[in-house]
Amino acid sequence: MKEFQLIKKFFKPLTKNQSAARELADDVAQISDLVISKDMFVEDVHFLRADGGFKIASKLLRTNLSDLASSGSTPLCYMLGFSKNKNTDEKFLRDFARGLKSVQDEFDLYLIGGDTVTSEKLFFSVTIFGKTKNAKVLSRNAAKDEDLIYVSGSIGDAFLGRVHKTSEYFLNRHFFPTPRIELGKKLLEKNLAKCAIDVSDGLLADLQHLCTASKLKAEIHLEKIPLSPLAKNPLELLSSGDDYELIFSVNPKNQKKISTLAKQMKLDLTCIGKFTAAKKCEVILLDRGKKIKLNKLGYEH
Amino acid sequence: MKEFQLIKKFFKPLTKNQSAARELADDVAQISDLVISKDMFVEDVHFLRADGGFKIASKLLRTNLSDLASSGSTPLCYMLGFSKNKNTDEKFLRDFARGLKSVQDEFDLYLIGGDTVTSEKLFFSVTIFGKTKNAKVLSRNAAKDEDLIYVSGSIGDAFLGRVHKTSEYFLNRHFFPTPRIELGKKLLEKNLAKCAIDVSDGLLADLQHLCTASKLKAEIHLEKIPLSPLAKNPLELLSSGDDYELIFSVNPKNQKKISTLAKQMKLDLTCIGKFTAAKKCEVILLDRGKKIKLNKLGYEH
Repeated sequence: MKEFQLIKKFFKPLTKNQSAARELADDVAQISDLVISKDMFVEDVHFLRADGGFKIASKLLRTNLSDLASSGSTPLCYMLGFSKNKNTDEKFLRDFARGLKSVQDEFDLYLIGGDTVTSEKLFFSVTIFGKTKNAKVLSRNAAKDEDLIYVSGSIGDAFLGRVHKTSEYFLNRHFFPTPRIELGKKLLEKNLAKCAIDVSDGLLADLQHLCTASKLKAEIHLEKIPLSPLAKNPLELLSSGDDYELIFSVNPKNQKKISTLAKQMKLDLTCIGKFTAAKKCEVILLDRGKKIKLNKLGYEH
Repeated sequence: MKEFQLIKKFFKPLTKNQSAARELADDVAQISDLVISKDMFVEDVHFLRADGGFKIASKLLRTNLSDLASSGSTPLCYMLGFSKNKNTDEKFLRDFARGLKSVQDEFDLYLIGGDTVTSEKLFFSVTIFGKTKNAKVLSRNAAKDEDLIYVSGSIGDAFLGRVHKTSEYFLNRHFFPTPRIELGKKLLEKNLAKCAIDVSDGLLADLQHLCTASKLKAEIHLEKIPLSPLAKNPLELLSSGDDYELIFSVNPKNQKKISTLAKQMKLDLTCIGKFTAAKKCEVILLDRGKKIKLNKLGYEH
């Protein structure tokens, strides 16, 4: 059973339709002005033991922060679920704590609790807390007909780093993704976007999530997507996750303000297409006007 | 490295001494009037796959609720970290959801979010949220010199169920422990206790946590401890965890009120000894006045 079916069938009824659960449609839950996200990180699935404590802890916390970024909230603190086994030596622990600290320092957050267990394969779980004003957040289901589709930064860098090990730059994009906290906050504050998601499963898959939640069709243009020129196969990059850039929807009247914001933030914000009302909530990929057939919309859990 | 050393050395510095972390000394963290606890539950450590989804989910949520009980807070909602693998069939999922629902119904809480991953060995993580009035909670470090030591219910039942499979009653005490939510709330509300912990590692080990945090010595009397008469080796029960009863400290002047509360709640609340000021923060076990030498204070993670 696919993850989304599983959640809908077995877990959604357990929310009792409480608003805090946000219909289990977003990466975050919300208790008044507190925004909360929980992630799990499994050895040999999300990381390798050989990556070492520093990289593992950095990526763990950075990807979790990305969930807060997609909601437009401000990071506050986190809880850590930590597993160890006989190979967990002092060096690993020191590096792991150093990795957490480096992210804490960059994003001004702190640890408030957690749990420690023993397990053969390592796994970690972070519950992260952010704050938001007036209980407002960006969400997946808030895109409107005719909204433009924007993406921050560039797409596929993490994949180039992980698979092709192209260069130090791309490897760092894989291990140390930049959660777009400032962008999320600005979009929400300035009322420039209502709908956002972070690219964790892949551009196509995550855009599909927006379509499904907002009940819209998305048309995007391959030639507009900010892909690295090093990409040998552009389509491969559209289905690769782990970039942690934001996809967000923008009312056409706000296009100029987005350009201004991009300059202020020194961050590329690229319009790659638009949402339209349609019966089928799907992603249409066009290459210079010609439809490309899609059969895989990125990483399925 | 032992869990407590690990936490002190590597994780405590990451709290930046923020009050929300409660010095990582309690099972809960606190953000204003929200009390939060995070637990991890690992296959072959905390549960067996053969236990089935219903029992696994029930125990997962019940033990997490017990952390809220020890803080005196009222359960609100929870997030679920869920792992699955190729053996996770529809029946397991249905039973798991049914297990969660049964606990939700009993304690009036709901699911607000989480994460789903794939892993060879199953593991689950719950982050649970409770509410408290005026930001007041019971804590481990609040016992005072001359306070009496009380314990709720009976000790060692879960062990008798798990190891000796004595009877259906004891097996149920193992799989479906009763988080003492009402007791924790009453103790806090009526100002009858300031210090509490739930028995998860074993009576001796958890009492030792109170001694360490409160900087006191505990003297307890074996003949007063409410152990099952079926126990072949009483000492074994004192080092066995999983009972999820509360140990709490009571000012001697409140003894009568505790008796009244016990009657009202139809729950045994037994005085088993007292705390005293001492240089060495240790647990002293006496058998009809004679000191018993202890070398193992319960389950070490």
